Amino acid sequence: MLVVMEKNITEKKIQAIITAIEKRGYTARTIPVGDRVSIGILHNKNSIEATHFLGLDGVKEVIPVTKPYKLVGREFQKENTLIKVGDAVFGDGSFVVIAGPCAVESEKQILSIAKSVQNAGAKVFRGGAFKPRTSPYSFQGLGKKGLIFLAKVRKETGLPIATEVMDVETFDLVEEYADIIQIGTRNMQNFSLLRRAGNSDKPVLLKRGMSATLQEWLMAAEYIMEQGNTKVILCERGVRTFVRHSRNTLDLSVVPAVKKESHLPIIVDPSHAAGIRDQVISLAHASAALGADGVMIEVHNHPEEALSDGPQSLYPDQFVTAMEKMKAIHAIIGNK
Amino acid sequence: MLVVMEKNITEKKIQAIITAIEKRGYTARTIPVGDRVSIGILHNKNSIEATHFLGLDGVKEVIPVTKPYKLVGREFQKENTLIKVGDAVFGDGSFVVIAGPCAVESEKQILSIAKSVQNAGAKVFRGGAFKPRTSPYSFQGLGKKGLIFLAKVRKETGLPIATEVMDVETFDLVEEYADIIQIGTRNMQNFSLLRRAGNSDKPVLLKRGMSATLQEWLMAAEYIMEQGNTKVILCERGVRTFVRHSRNTLDLSVVPAVKKESHLPIIVDPSHAAGIRDQVISLAHASAALGADGVMIEVHNHPEEALSDGPQSLYPDQFVTAMEKMKAIHAIIGNK
Amino acid sequence: MLVVMEKNITEKKIQAIITAIEKRGYTARTIPVGDRVSIGILHNKNSIEATHFLGLDGVKEVIPVTKPYKLVGREFQKENTLIKVGDAVFGDGSFVVIAGPCAVESEKQILSIAKSVQNAGAKVFRGGAFKPRTSPYSFQGLGKKGLIFLAKVRKETGLPIATEVMDVETFDLVEEYADIIQIGTRNMQNFSLLRRAGNSDKPVLLKRGMSATLQEWLMAAEYIMEQGNTKVILCERGVRTFVRHSRNTLDLSVVPAVKKESHLPIIVDPSHAAGIRDQVISLAHASAALGADGVMIEVHNHPEEALSDGPQSLYPDQFVTAMEKMKAIHAIIGNK
Amino acid sequence: MLVVMEKNITEKKIQAIITAIEKRGYTARTIPVGDRVSIGILHNKNSIEATHFLGLDGVKEVIPVTKPYKLVGREFQKENTLIKVGDAVFGDGSFVVIAGPCAVESEKQILSIAKSVQNAGAKVFRGGAFKPRTSPYSFQGLGKKGLIFLAKVRKETGLPIATEVMDVETFDLVEEYADIIQIGTRNMQNFSLLRRAGNSDKPVLLKRGMSATLQEWLMAAEYIMEQGNTKVILCERGVRTFVRHSRNTLDLSVVPAVKKESHLPIIVDPSHAAGIRDQVISLAHASAALGADGVMIEVHNHPEEALSDGPQSLYPDQFVTAMEKMKAIHAIIGNK
Repeated sequence: MLVVMEKNITEKKIQAIITAIEKRGYTARTIPVGDRVSIGILHNKNSIEATHFLGLDGVKEVIPVTKPYKLVGREFQKENTLIKVGDAVFGDGSFVVIAGPCAVESEKQILSIAKSVQNAGAKVFRGGAFKPRTSPYSFQGLGKKGLIFLAKVRKETGLPIATEVMDVETFDLVEEYADIIQIGTRNMQNFSLLRRAGNSDKPVLLKRGMSATLQEWLMAAEYIMEQGNTKVILCERGVRTFVRHSRNTLDLSVVPAVKKESHLPIIVDPSHAAGIRDQVISLAHASAALGADGVMIEVHNHPEEALSDGPQSLYPDQFVTAMEKMKAIHAIIGNK
Repeated sequence: MLVVMEKNITEKKIQAIITAIEKRGYTARTIPVGDRVSIGILHNKNSIEATHFLGLDGVKEVIPVTKPYKLVGREFQKENTLIKVGDAVFGDGSFVVIAGPCAVESEKQILSIAKSVQNAGAKVFRGGAFKPRTSPYSFQGLGKKGLIFLAKVRKETGLPIATEVMDVETFDLVEEYADIIQIGTRNMQNFSLLRRAGNSDKPVLLKRGMSATLQEWLMAAEYIMEQGNTKVILCERGVRTFVRHSRNTLDLSVVPAVKKESHLPIIVDPSHAAGIRDQVISLAHASAALGADGVMIEVHNHPEEALSDGPQSLYPDQFVTAMEKMKAIHAIIGNK
Repeated sequence: MLVVMEKNITEKKIQAIITAIEKRGYTARTIPVGDRVSIGILHNKNSIEATHFLGLDGVKEVIPVTKPYKLVGREFQKENTLIKVGDAVFGDGSFVVIAGPCAVESEKQILSIAKSVQNAGAKVFRGGAFKPRTSPYSFQGLGKKGLIFLAKVRKETGLPIATEVMDVETFDLVEEYADIIQIGTRNMQNFSLLRRAGNSDKPVLLKRGMSATLQEWLMAAEYIMEQGNTKVILCERGVRTFVRHSRNTLDLSVVPAVKKESHLPIIVDPSHAAGIRDQVISLAHASAALGADGVMIEVHNHPEEALSDGPQSLYPDQFVTAMEKMKAIHAIIGNK
Repeated sequence: MLVVMEKNITEKKIQAIITAIEKRGYTARTIPVGDRVSIGILHNKNSIEATHFLGLDGVKEVIPVTKPYKLVGREFQKENTLIKVGDAVFGDGSFVVIAGPCAVESEKQILSIAKSVQNAGAKVFRGGAFKPRTSPYSFQGLGKKGLIFLAKVRKETGLPIATEVMDVETFDLVEEYADIIQIGTRNMQNFSLLRRAGNSDKPVLLKRGMSATLQEWLMAAEYIMEQGNTKVILCERGVRTFVRHSRNTLDLSVVPAVKKESHLPIIVDPSHAAGIRDQVISLAHASAALGADGVMIEVHNHPEEALSDGPQSLYPDQFVTAMEKMKAIHAIIGNK
């Protein structure tokens, strides 16, 4: 932490800041940087909160130097975390495709889709049984019945299941059925839910919050890891911006940024970012080219009749073609 | 809902869209608007999801005409909702000030602050017992002990208490102690929590999500109202933008926008928006001038020693001055 | 400038950075901040570009400590810059209201509006002769004819004129007629235009760019001041965000932030921010409460027939009421 | 244009709106859409401004149905515009790579870089002679001397030259030397400059403004085309968001969105978006996978000594590898 003082500050004010720092148990050291005095805070084991010193008399700015996260950091663990689910491994340089409909609608529907995505090369099946919806009047998912259908898909196809959990109350239930537990964008900072996920031994797919910084996202993963669950897969799904030609703005540069900062695997969800089919396909190709550890794509056998997110769901044959291209691109690029 | 077709579309494609609309139980009517054909969807009781028709062949755009919310809308209820808590009434044209520290730190601390804000004219006391924190290593609040301290403040001063609830698990506990139950920005779309709040008979202070549109925010209030709790107070607290000179960008234009769309009262929290004391005071004055139903302001007796959010907390004497100015401004402006 | 190194960096790599710093003529000093080594750059007269050192081997981050602006900074000049135009003074604690239509449409129109806003207390008349329009097919302003009309208004009413300049080619012309030369949001980083404005002796009203940071905005003012023109009035007019209930998001917290960083006066344009009448009035009141040095407001005698920006223009009687309230609020708040 | 009325509106108010529409020369037709009345505006040849009707009594919303652009639209011209420069063709399905340093620093420098990027397969050389810089104290480019150096590069290598023009005053000069005239992000809505470019017969590379919507960007291109120059190449370079791990947020979904809306070619500049080398490479690969018509990449022989944008410039050998991968990816994807 670097406490930058205003110019021409009195010695007395500097002493007051030093006292405030030492009162909290840290060591202070004055440093002339540029044309003003700054005070470095040393010997802090944990990260310090900038807010403790910002707003004190004579302080112009407080600049964090140490990152606030530990367990998720590449500096803490150099090697990639590998997460094995069924035949898939996230983080080992392979490109894992998770596919399936937005919501589980019927047993027949998901079995049909599951078989077709499996044939095309998907390694994990996705489908929502509990659906977070902006409107209380929209279809909210089949709930437990949906989970039972998903279990049947797993039994018939052997594909592991990724499905979303919406709250602590239904966590045990979802945990029982899911192979990968998804935490959605609106819950990225639902800290009670994160802690519960941290006490699970199932892998957690943590979607980025709608306007989360990289640091906040990694801190959310830190909540899970701090409780003991090290199997966290990050998932970029677009952030909210002024842009209107896509539902969200897919922030692909976060993929190399995460890879640099963290050892956790990261995949991309182009479906929710784009909100419209044509863009989804292009962005899926781009995700493969980018060196992500995988993608999660919505596929529906009859998108025009889907109960949710129809226009962003690929037709099965579009998915087949996209899979081939992603595979070919991944062979060129790899990921480390 | 208006389904806008591409130019020079065939009659056959138009028929296919009409069929799709009627299959879902609505009435379709073709309309020549501008230089192309559009199809209006009529006789829908509930709002229709745009996604059902977007992505169909020949469709250029789908434009919602009806707003998706009902109960929260000014069109549903013309008169302002009035919410009475202690001596305060939200929505009746008065300007209610909620004040107190970010977090409850000790009994002595909050009693001292409560007396001073009460003397200055605050009508509700705030203080966090359960604190949502970006880092799992930051101070998380005193929990139940904090609630007990808050109850003592109410007993000694008569001030009603506003405090945050973080999850369904601790809802009963918080509900027992609080006079106003706050739902924080990160939980604005925690739908399970909203539903639980909808089953309470205590007023709910619903903060706007960090990047929530007006519509999403009102839909979150709709979740609460749809369960039967009509006492929802909206609270603007700044949104996330590219701006770096304040922690969040306080979106004051949302106050007149909410007043136009909804009958619910709306207050402003300038403390979390600004993140720094000087701005908080200016923005509090501005909130009074804007015709908001009140403000929520952080005040601390020793900001430099606060366990959280020190730099944005006012000193008690700053709060006294700010109260006087807000009162005088409100006398000029009023709010309807 | 603080160059933060990665953890466990070798002594050799640190030496390489030091060499790179010294090669550019600066002094380097290693500093242990937190749990890693950083290198401070000292004795730099001008600000240093972070990009020179970012991307060198072993460098984790480069943190600017010194602000890049000089002439515009409060550290360079403690006292407020005062800018006198007609009867108005920007920066002396008064609250100056600039009012008039978006575009000059006819002589009769602007004379009528000018008289009514003058009666209500406006001190400067605004009106666009050259209009920047998103579409080449929209009304582009009356050009020179508009300027001549504006000069007649000045002659008849004595009000000084603020009008926009769009390019260097028409600068001489606009300069001849205008008392305040406005540079619009889309030209905030038109550096050739800024330099030309810096060679004028007329006051310049510099609108904030649509997504400009405080620092970029002040740097744009620095371009003008660096050429010798010290009469720069800053004007906040809303920034672009995800928000859709107003045309732009008025960032009122920038007013106290500018006042802290700079000695230049700052006014607010609520008309372009809001885009809709009701919000404009509320935001104008808020601007007065905030301690801004003034506002610029669009007023039209027949908004429903305006050639541009009708819905955001106040009716003359709305303006009268708003003026009274702003005046009363300013009497309470003042500004320093 | 669809004028949506408030609920339960009186017949009289509806008539007033109809009169206002007809007064402007359009045809009005009332339409019952959803649970309220709307008024469609027909028989308009040009696009209508929403602002004319927004704000009239009883109007809830005004919804544009027709797009405001003509010449740039795919509905106006179905086939891709092809732009031939040297050996490169933009828009014919090939993937054109423009490469070179941010700024021209010396003859020797650019010749060395030009030869190396040419060997790697770049078809156009880029280099800035006039540099728009946030600070007036930063290196502003070599000006005419830089252009002369660029001409020498063309002579020696045969590569066409892309370089930026900053204002109308130096347009003739830049036009004389450049094969592709670049208009930078800060000038995207410098309408005088756009009109001047519209009178050139050289291809124009139009960068997207820092916070431009797709529509504003296409309207800027419309300004150029409306003057007669049909050779416009669009260039995505990242938009401004709350994100801090990259300099700007590269909005790759704009590529398929442009291809759908417009016949103009679109390339991607990952260098300015990312601001840091590692991300640039990944995003360049992604751009190839996305079906863009090309990329523009900064390459420098000694990035650590570059006068500007060093950390985002690739080393020549990195560029060679990136070229190979982009080429291989393009072979898989193609672009239509």
